[in-house]
Amino acid sequence: MAVSPHPFDSISPAEIVLATKILAAAFPGVPLRYKKIDIQEPIKCEVVPFIEAERLGKPLPAKPTRLLLVLFHRMDTMAFCKALLNADTRSVISAKELPKHVQGPGDPDELGEVEQLCLSHPAVQAEVAKLKLPPGVTVCNDPWIYGTDDPNETRRLFQCYMYIVATDHPENNHYSVPCKFSPVFDVHKRELVRMDYLPGGVDMQTTETQPWKPVETIQYAHDLLQEPLRTDLKPYIVQQPQGPSFNIDGSVVSWQKWRFRVGFNSREGLVIYNLTYDKRNVFYRLSMSEMTVPYGDPRAPYHRKQAFDVGDVGFGVTANQLSLGCDCLGHIKYFDGYRADSKGNPVLLKNVICLHEQDNGLQHKHTNYRNNAATVVRNRQLVVQMICTVANYEYIFAFIFDQAANIELEVRATGILSTVPFDNEKPGTTVLWGTNVGPGVMAPFHQHMFSFRMDPALDGFKNTVYYEDSVPLPEDKNNPYLVGYTTEQTVLRTSGTANTDISRHRVFKIRNDTHINPITYKPIAYKLQTSPSQMLLSSPKSYGAKRAGFATKPIWITKYRDDELYAAGEFTNQSRESEGVEKWVQRKDPVENEDIVLWHTFGLTHNPRIEDFPVMPVERVSVMLKPDGFFIKNPALDVPPSTQSFNKSTLHPEPAATCCAPAERMGKL
Amino acid sequence: MAVSPHPFDSISPAEIVLATKILAAAFPGVPLRYKKIDIQEPIKCEVVPFIEAERLGKPLPAKPTRLLLVLFHRMDTMAFCKALLNADTRSVISAKELPKHVQGPGDPDELGEVEQLCLSHPAVQAEVAKLKLPPGVTVCNDPWIYGTDDPNETRRLFQCYMYIVATDHPENNHYSVPCKFSPVFDVHKRELVRMDYLPGGVDMQTTETQPWKPVETIQYAHDLLQEPLRTDLKPYIVQQPQGPSFNIDGSVVSWQKWRFRVGFNSREGLVIYNLTYDKRNVFYRLSMSEMTVPYGDPRAPYHRKQAFDVGDVGFGVTANQLSLGCDCLGHIKYFDGYRADSKGNPVLLKNVICLHEQDNGLQHKHTNYRNNAATVVRNRQLVVQMICTVANYEYIFAFIFDQAANIELEVRATGILSTVPFDNEKPGTTVLWGTNVGPGVMAPFHQHMFSFRMDPALDGFKNTVYYEDSVPLPEDKNNPYLVGYTTEQTVLRTSGTANTDISRHRVFKIRNDTHINPITYKPIAYKLQTSPSQMLLSSPKSYGAKRAGFATKPIWITKYRDDELYAAGEFTNQSRESEGVEKWVQRKDPVENEDIVLWHTFGLTHNPRIEDFPVMPVERVSVMLKPDGFFIKNPALDVPPSTQSFNKSTLHPEPAATCCAPAERMGKL
Repeated sequence: MAVSPHPFDSISPAEIVLATKILAAAFPGVPLRYKKIDIQEPIKCEVVPFIEAERLGKPLPAKPTRLLLVLFHRMDTMAFCKALLNADTRSVISAKELPKHVQGPGDPDELGEVEQLCLSHPAVQAEVAKLKLPPGVTVCNDPWIYGTDDPNETRRLFQCYMYIVATDHPENNHYSVPCKFSPVFDVHKRELVRMDYLPGGVDMQTTETQPWKPVETIQYAHDLLQEPLRTDLKPYIVQQPQGPSFNIDGSVVSWQKWRFRVGFNSREGLVIYNLTYDKRNVFYRLSMSEMTVPYGDPRAPYHRKQAFDVGDVGFGVTANQLSLGCDCLGHIKYFDGYRADSKGNPVLLKNVICLHEQDNGLQHKHTNYRNNAATVVRNRQLVVQMICTVANYEYIFAFIFDQAANIELEVRATGILSTVPFDNEKPGTTVLWGTNVGPGVMAPFHQHMFSFRMDPALDGFKNTVYYEDSVPLPEDKNNPYLVGYTTEQTVLRTSGTANTDISRHRVFKIRNDTHINPITYKPIAYKLQTSPSQMLLSSPKSYGAKRAGFATKPIWITKYRDDELYAAGEFTNQSRESEGVEKWVQRKDPVENEDIVLWHTFGLTHNPRIEDFPVMPVERVSVMLKPDGFFIKNPALDVPPSTQSFNKSTLHPEPAATCCAPAERMGKL
Repeated sequence: MAVSPHPFDSISPAEIVLATKILAAAFPGVPLRYKKIDIQEPIKCEVVPFIEAERLGKPLPAKPTRLLLVLFHRMDTMAFCKALLNADTRSVISAKELPKHVQGPGDPDELGEVEQLCLSHPAVQAEVAKLKLPPGVTVCNDPWIYGTDDPNETRRLFQCYMYIVATDHPENNHYSVPCKFSPVFDVHKRELVRMDYLPGGVDMQTTETQPWKPVETIQYAHDLLQEPLRTDLKPYIVQQPQGPSFNIDGSVVSWQKWRFRVGFNSREGLVIYNLTYDKRNVFYRLSMSEMTVPYGDPRAPYHRKQAFDVGDVGFGVTANQLSLGCDCLGHIKYFDGYRADSKGNPVLLKNVICLHEQDNGLQHKHTNYRNNAATVVRNRQLVVQMICTVANYEYIFAFIFDQAANIELEVRATGILSTVPFDNEKPGTTVLWGTNVGPGVMAPFHQHMFSFRMDPALDGFKNTVYYEDSVPLPEDKNNPYLVGYTTEQTVLRTSGTANTDISRHRVFKIRNDTHINPITYKPIAYKLQTSPSQMLLSSPKSYGAKRAGFATKPIWITKYRDDELYAAGEFTNQSRESEGVEKWVQRKDPVENEDIVLWHTFGLTHNPRIEDFPVMPVERVSVMLKPDGFFIKNPALDVPPSTQSFNKSTLHPEPAATCCAPAERMGKL
């Protein structure tokens, strides 16, 4: 009998195989094509007693039911189905056909098939022939999710954006040379639905495919650069001669009073589970629940460019296999994951999560100015990170923990801009919705809207969210000098939304009303330091907005329900409207002193700089969760001091003194 | 003949001595007490031809006049005077008595004198006697700048806040035990002006001094902690075996295409001068021009707590003498400064600025998903930093340069909260304007408002500032799917102010209208990524607001004038109203394609957490300057790849495989 998994463990290859066996038995003789085999989130009310017993060192109750989720197509009817399995009893809990308009996410096998289908299609080859490409120059395509613009569409569609391949180098930047035709395929029927032609100028006008006029391609690979590499960058090496300060036991990470489990699934990728500090509950679950990237170019077919990178593809599936010494510095622990391929075979996702310590400057310092005695403590952090490649683009997601009980979610956007063809030979030609980034190529404006899902457990699983504004005191006798100010609290009592407000220094807090801080006399709390952002720019009447309700408000609060994990709903691909937070808040559930979920939408309005091409210097966004009355003093006081004997820094040598050294300057006056 | 200084060099000890000699000759027989002897900013129109010749490698024109600034009191009349000296000709340019209400900054000698004056004063000693302190327990005081509340006040005043000293440890935290009396002194007459009594409860009521009831003090020094230090933090060592990537020549720093001069003066401390990238002009001067810290406790005498840490004291004067291995990791270069003491003697300020490289994760990455070929470049940065202790509080200021031509101004706030006495023995007692942080001690709400002064020189010394908002396209035939968006530009044509606006994703840009990017067809530019913040909370009718006009708007633009360096004006101590940006913008100067200065006010509304006591985990604020069409592609492409052979990371060892290793789990199903 093998050891059974922990409720928060990611799926194992054996479980993937088990799922295919259960389904083969349930659908005898029916050929199945798998889209996803993964864990189904365990039922929270079963999990809580289990992890509480773990935390308190008590005898463990029965393990929560191990659930598996399978998305698949019946290849006889092409029906899209969802099955829930009980891995403990090896049985089907439910298996249902989903409505015809529901499309599952794209998967790696499918994307590869579409790419090949496109390249081999005679209509595409006919267009390519019109390009009259010189020898050695070919084309490639990126299959794109087909954003909705027709409420009656039930076909499974992909739009292929075509590019010139100017060199066969493995890191050729084809995004520098977009073509002006774009076939749309029905992937189930394996047929061309339509050949779209892309506008080439400042308006909607399209033209027939013309012979390609060779242009310089803007390359990012070091091999392909015209200019020499910098030679004056010296090595910077992080050494941890006594090893790291963390301990790893399976998926359990312990570091500096923090303890949590590293979760992984094909949709969200990295998940932080059961986060405690000094054995106190802090969060039940933290994850990047969804994101959407709508583009601002108003012209067809670009209006359909609205990726939902979590729901349409998945950050787990697209997570990079990280390499030692490239993606992180120092002493690195990697975690693997598994996904299933279209046949149901387990696929190892090696090194998809990395974990390491970093130094982030000072954590606290005070110098007694009377005697120059100083207490200096450095800010050691633990970083848990994944890097996802979604076709052209990269996201770096990191949860960063520190010794003062702060939690940071850091997002870095990098990779290659999604580009479109643009005839900008005529000097001065520009569009209102994009930036010229090279000869014949333009990068349209777009937004990246993220949904950070926080399932809090501050000293217990019933919490309350409120916001606090800083406002002047009334100008009355209690404020005679007119400088007084105070705070105003607004408790979110029913599920709903809230806005950020910089002018009032609005801060959102999560508190436990039943635990009062003995010094402040206020409930223990964490505050959410939001990243106030411009919300979705699409018109509320657009499909872009209907499909991404979560991106229209920065703060959402819902009462916890199993199955409500994804801000834009379970199925986003070709969705007509989202079935996510904007629906759930309408229940008007009580959320004061309840099991709640807090969702923060933040983002980047990204009007590309030319400096973002051909590969983009990271754009960094950060959201913090900080204790606020959770402790009775700075929890990092017990971090040892920063000393030279510990840190072993090096003094830059001073030049030998000369007659004109600064101290001597003007010395003869 | 000694080598004469560069126009941007900080003051030398010989120049300090020279200044005293020139003034002794100019005021024969008059005893002088010096407040400041420093460089006077050189005249820009003299400097520009000089640094341009340097940049272009041309023969140097005549050096700009070397100017020195001296603030002093005539000890015969106590008049406060300002002198400008020509160091080249060793002569007085001007020397004038300032109006009686103008007060110079506090200086270290003066603050020490006030502290002693207070402790030895019989009235103070009488109050101390009433405390009936146990043996070994004493008192100390922090002299505070006396914020204005009387337009007729011309005395030079300090308010001393008194604290119990519970232990003679050099890092005793007296801020944990504030007393309820606070004497005010006229420092020139060396006399007690008034004994203020501090409110002890939730209202304005004060009481006579009572015997002290001993309370537990909340200490931060490692020696004084009750709890043991953490033992599980392992060393983290940065090694640069081939040395740093920077070169230092006097005050000139060269690193990764950046070149600049490190300036230092007693008021702003660190200044970045003549910043170029790849020999192109970027900024003439960058500095933290001013900051103010108004407190929100409405009760006397706290309404006078409004420090101007630059103008009232100075970040150069209060800059910490940094220690190897404590304040920075890696290979560290330190810069020294000099100030004059009250007698005019040079005082060495050792290691007040440090400079080092750091690794900040990834700079850019792209993986070709077809073949997993990845380009990974790390984000090496150069940090130039100072740490200032302003009595209880610490600020860490860093200019951070990267390889993608980004400039970051990072501010970290740490140190000890300014506290007040509070009788909170009765459970539940709280005030509207502060946080209880320990027994008998409360930390009032306050704001930190910073003014970042940017003197741009993007490819020349005449630039234009505009802001750009992201807005939906009209819902018309050119936007048929209602997802299109565009940007709107607003040029600031006359000196004035502007607001930030998150809802419109407002970005401020500095451009050179005469240099057009050959690809984007738009003027070369840098963008300012602001830190949108709540502005000053004090009523516009309050002295708090009148003295800090700069803190009422986030963006100011002025036409350059020599002598307009400080956002709240030249003299802030006991000022009645500021004479800074809010006055200068009223000239309505043309600022389009002119020599301009951009000022960004940002800040922290700091409603203390109990976790901020007894020493505060850093609160970080960041402002970025990023190229935006300044280059024709990502300027960091030529940074070598991130490789294990260069970075030498360490793989965390995997546990030995067992029968229940994850990959085997459930393998028997």
